[in-house]
Amino acid sequence: KINADRLWDSLMEMAKIGPGVAGGNNRQTLTDEDGEGRALFQKWCEDAGCTMGLDQLGNMFATRAGTDPDALPVYVGSHLDTQPTGGKYDGVLGVLGGLEIIRTLNDLGIKTKHPIVATNWTNEEGTRFAPAMLSSGVFAGIHTQDWAEGKTDAQGKRFGDELDRIGWRGDEEVGARKMHAFFELHIEQGPILEAEQKDIGVVTHGQGLSWTQVTITGKDSHTGSTPMPMRKNAGLGMARILDLVDEIAWSHAPHAVGAAGHIDVFPNSRNVIPGKVVFTVDFRSPDLSVIEDMERRLKSGGQAIADDLGLGIAFEKVGGFDPVEFDEGCVTAVRNAAERLGYSHRDLISGAGHDACWINRVAPTAMVMCPCVDGLSHNEAEEISKDWAEKGTNVLFHAVVETAGV
Amino acid sequence: KINADRLWDSLMEMAKIGPGVAGGNNRQTLTDEDGEGRALFQKWCEDAGCTMGLDQLGNMFATRAGTDPDALPVYVGSHLDTQPTGGKYDGVLGVLGGLEIIRTLNDLGIKTKHPIVATNWTNEEGTRFAPAMLSSGVFAGIHTQDWAEGKTDAQGKRFGDELDRIGWRGDEEVGARKMHAFFELHIEQGPILEAEQKDIGVVTHGQGLSWTQVTITGKDSHTGSTPMPMRKNAGLGMARILDLVDEIAWSHAPHAVGAAGHIDVFPNSRNVIPGKVVFTVDFRSPDLSVIEDMERRLKSGGQAIADDLGLGIAFEKVGGFDPVEFDEGCVTAVRNAAERLGYSHRDLISGAGHDACWINRVAPTAMVMCPCVDGLSHNEAEEISKDWAEKGTNVLFHAVVETAGV
Ligand SMILES: NC(=O)NCCC(=O)O
Ligand SMILES: NC(=O)NCCC(=O)O
Repeated sequence: KINADRLWDSLMEMAKIGPGVAGGNNRQTLTDEDGEGRALFQKWCEDAGCTMGLDQLGNMFATRAGTDPDALPVYVGSHLDTQPTGGKYDGVLGVLGGLEIIRTLNDLGIKTKHPIVATNWTNEEGTRFAPAMLSSGVFAGIHTQDWAEGKTDAQGKRFGDELDRIGWRGDEEVGARKMHAFFELHIEQGPILEAEQKDIGVVTHGQGLSWTQVTITGKDSHTGSTPMPMRKNAGLGMARILDLVDEIAWSHAPHAVGAAGHIDVFPNSRNVIPGKVVFTVDFRSPDLSVIEDMERRLKSGGQAIADDLGLGIAFEKVGGFDPVEFDEGCVTAVRNAAERLGYSHRDLISGAGHDACWINRVAPTAMVMCPCVDGLSHNEAEEISKDWAEKGTNVLFHAVVETAGV
Repeated sequence: KINADRLWDSLMEMAKIGPGVAGGNNRQTLTDEDGEGRALFQKWCEDAGCTMGLDQLGNMFATRAGTDPDALPVYVGSHLDTQPTGGKYDGVLGVLGGLEIIRTLNDLGIKTKHPIVATNWTNEEGTRFAPAMLSSGVFAGIHTQDWAEGKTDAQGKRFGDELDRIGWRGDEEVGARKMHAFFELHIEQGPILEAEQKDIGVVTHGQGLSWTQVTITGKDSHTGSTPMPMRKNAGLGMARILDLVDEIAWSHAPHAVGAAGHIDVFPNSRNVIPGKVVFTVDFRSPDLSVIEDMERRLKSGGQAIADDLGLGIAFEKVGGFDPVEFDEGCVTAVRNAAERLGYSHRDLISGAGHDACWINRVAPTAMVMCPCVDGLSHNEAEEISKDWAEKGTNVLFHAVVETAGV
């Protein structure tokens, strides 16, 4: 069994880097704080006897050697980047859980046949640079490296330039590594495990995602002296489309969700009718045909709203992945581990996207989930108990060590 | 008659300070660019033989002496600050039109009985610091100076601190000056004069304004893993209220307008359901009872929308003024001037707020308007012809000189 106090101390230590304003974290990808978090993780890995590898997108791979020189490594990890107002566990638990497995193997003097690699993927959150899970996506051959490096943040800064700026670009070709398997531990970010008082979620599937960036163009003009019939109010178009998004998602509930988290209004002045609004619609479902239906209805309904108000409208898909089915063997290893440890568990569909969703395309992959308070995540108040973290990491430990062989 | 080429050259020279991105201006109040614009205006006024006075809120008063030492001055002016994506004429024409009158009197060697004071009011636009017409409001005794200095911009910077920072705080007590009359020339910012091919708008009234800042609070949470029934989506509440604002305004059209130009979404991340949205609703009408009705319906309807979605909501009035009736004597002076000069004219209700609306409370006041292309303002593409500027300034010249006495 893993050392829960040590794991918890490391979580709290990491949370000191990039503190938020309300007890959580703001350690967005490729900021100085991301660089500091990486340095701390590297130090801890090297202290645990690992060798750090770094690829050209800053993905970090801390290897604990195995006994069989020909055996491919078992990878275990998640991400250290956070939302602008994010929690202390989303992603971090999976990375430091991987490190804790290595520390525990060291404590116990256990040698595994396959090497074990604790991993930190760059830009999982997708909040600063869309899409989410960007670098694991390149690793899995979904995106090209050039495409990823050209992504820009709200200030127009390029992903590739920011990676160079913080000094975390390595030499390794992205995706060159071959994996025996990949395991990711993550907090559920939803309410099911806590409500049903289960210790462990055995993640069998992940729901698919579609991010559509909508740009509405109207005409900036004076809020006071422009008569109602002459207005081209891009803000009103945005408002009607947000209501439509909600209606579309509800029409498929409980098998779909939808909302817009990102909304930028231009010029954003109290007495100027908005001439432009850019926002991103996030639709999800475990069923690909539902996602496709929602996208279709957003486009046709959005176009009708824009036409009605004399507005221009453009749709750009800025992120997406199809629903995922994880590897049966790896999923079974997770379920067996929970069973063996005597933890209550249930199968789950992940509501969020994870690096595991992309890595599943190139290696046998599964995920372990632990509960989080009120299902709350992407909020500084995100919380888990030490007991939940311990049980999740114990399951991860058993599944990984079983897969890596002793 | 005034010198139209000189006036136009000065307009173009001022427009070089704080250029926008699309041919207009970004010279927001109390920025470095505002400071530069002020310095240029001061130099021009001193070159024309005026003495510059500066009050404790940075209001600028360039005096051309009169012949009667006991006669109160006739004030003429507007504002040099602009919207973030503003035009070259909104406000500026009124200030440089005042200067052009003084230059013309110098050319003609005319002495007036009453002094003439070309004026620049601080923070007319209200885009950086709400409310609009802030310093003329203090001058007229509507707001206290302390209240104005405590207003903060989106970055939390205080009005008073920014005034000190740019170095344009004077010693004069705000509002200590007594006026014989005040005249303001402004572009219409609406479509009526151009559509009816009138040279001059004789402004008899100004419509009233109400700015309500609405804060909706929900709960930040994950867009993927939060089930639809558990969401507290502040963005959806904002959307429904924007639709309500439009409906309320239309219900009173053509005697009212309404929209929201300012909308801030928190934390504004693609995969976080907005936990908070702050936006400002702008309602206007020439009829006070209509404004009151619109405010009432915004509050009751907004509360119902918030309750329905499980959201918190708060309303704060951040700006407002009642409908205005300008001084009969001054309005007649404007109408007579247009008539005498042979210009086509019509009476107008101003759709926008102006410093003249506040000064009207403490001195006999009127406004002159000239057309603008497509009624477009608060847009970098705002445009007027040199001919329109010339005619408007000639009317201003005649009205002012008649009132000041020769
Ligand atoms: N786990 C997580 O929050 N990932 C971010 C990508 C997503 O929005 O699902
Ligand atoms: N004239 C003008 O645009 N003033 C700004 C205040 C308002 O919004 O009416």
